[in-house]
Amino acid sequence: MNTSKKQIDSEKLTPTQRSQVKRVPKRGNYERQVIYDILDEALICHVGFIVDNQPFVIPTAFGRVGDKIYIHGSPASRMLRSLSQGIEVCVTVTLLDGLVLARSAFHLSMNYRSVVVFGTAEIVKDPEEKLQALEAFTEQIISGRWGEVRSPNRAELQGTLVLSLPLNEASAKVRTGMPIDDEADYNLPVWAGVLPLKLVAGQAIADDRLLEGMVVPDYVEKYTRDRVNSFS
Amino acid sequence: MNTSKKQIDSEKLTPTQRSQVKRVPKRGNYERQVIYDILDEALICHVGFIVDNQPFVIPTAFGRVGDKIYIHGSPASRMLRSLSQGIEVCVTVTLLDGLVLARSAFHLSMNYRSVVVFGTAEIVKDPEEKLQALEAFTEQIISGRWGEVRSPNRAELQGTLVLSLPLNEASAKVRTGMPIDDEADYNLPVWAGVLPLKLVAGQAIADDRLLEGMVVPDYVEKYTRDRVNSFS
Repeated sequence: MNTSKKQIDSEKLTPTQRSQVKRVPKRGNYERQVIYDILDEALICHVGFIVDNQPFVIPTAFGRVGDKIYIHGSPASRMLRSLSQGIEVCVTVTLLDGLVLARSAFHLSMNYRSVVVFGTAEIVKDPEEKLQALEAFTEQIISGRWGEVRSPNRAELQGTLVLSLPLNEASAKVRTGMPIDDEADYNLPVWAGVLPLKLVAGQAIADDRLLEGMVVPDYVEKYTRDRVNSFS
Repeated sequence: MNTSKKQIDSEKLTPTQRSQVKRVPKRGNYERQVIYDILDEALICHVGFIVDNQPFVIPTAFGRVGDKIYIHGSPASRMLRSLSQGIEVCVTVTLLDGLVLARSAFHLSMNYRSVVVFGTAEIVKDPEEKLQALEAFTEQIISGRWGEVRSPNRAELQGTLVLSLPLNEASAKVRTGMPIDDEADYNLPVWAGVLPLKLVAGQAIADDRLLEGMVVPDYVEKYTRDRVNSFS
């Protein structure tokens, strides 16, 4: 998987009617590398789909291999049942990097990196691709885990529905930096700036039924998501 | 606003066809207080809506006042233009509390608290409600900020579209606790447990154009989102 993650061409996606960033277009980005980096840092995505003219937005874990993302779950889930019928889907990933504290309420903002992907999901039938997707799914959540845990057995593989979505129609949107205040407001006696945010891990809590002598693995002990905010 | 946040009845919402938690129903919760607590801790929501049979999922900030949530933005945004036409919307909020590290790949999971709200958004026309919504919006992001910054002026108020969504049809879904492994897997020599996660703030970065003598306010210095994970 690491190999395929490195086989990224620097290609730029072509914005479409629906993937083009319309609000504050200068924040839009269509570079594959930018899109992949945001996806790879995220723990969950929000999947949007339509059932009976009703939009649903469901949070779920995912994995990426090359130019596809994978989601998975029980074949009984409403989301997966619906998506496996080849309907249009919108998958959104959002990373929060900071609060942008301007001098006026109007210019309060956040620094973030988000990706929106459009397309049609497909059921993964090839057993090898399915296993690779499940590995990507595990490694996306916590790198190093797949090699240590029991791999899916035949019943689990058969009982898991895996869907793939191509990363052909997608855009990133990124805000960085300081607040942009109205010129007159710079004279206000108000503290302004950025408060950086990041998702951090606390101390691992062992399961009660742990075998004796098991120690917290290094990849758990040193777990971190962030590649942008480096504050400690 | 704090007053209205406290005026919560302990009423339970009635699950509907679309709001009922179908996968792992024991994790579903329809108590207003549970739903409100999750909403109030979140910095952003993901708004799902349909334009020309295409689902869109857009991340955005929001605020809550009593039994309504508010989103806002430019009247030119595709999302707000669409929603202001009274179409069906699905608003989802997700808080990640930890990685659930099971002994098999199949049982890898996350602890989370999520809320899904269904309904039809309405344009807020009453100027007082609009201002109250903008206060809620600011205070949701950083409590204490509204009283310190310049309030919206008439042009800003007119240039901001505020939409409200009633919290009548909603559900929470919560996973807590340790992994649930297959009985045989408890004998595997694999470390298992929970790795808690939370969103934390780093050190505030002052704007270059800050007036002399401005110090970081207490509510910025001591900023925290979490009400559940108390690790430091």
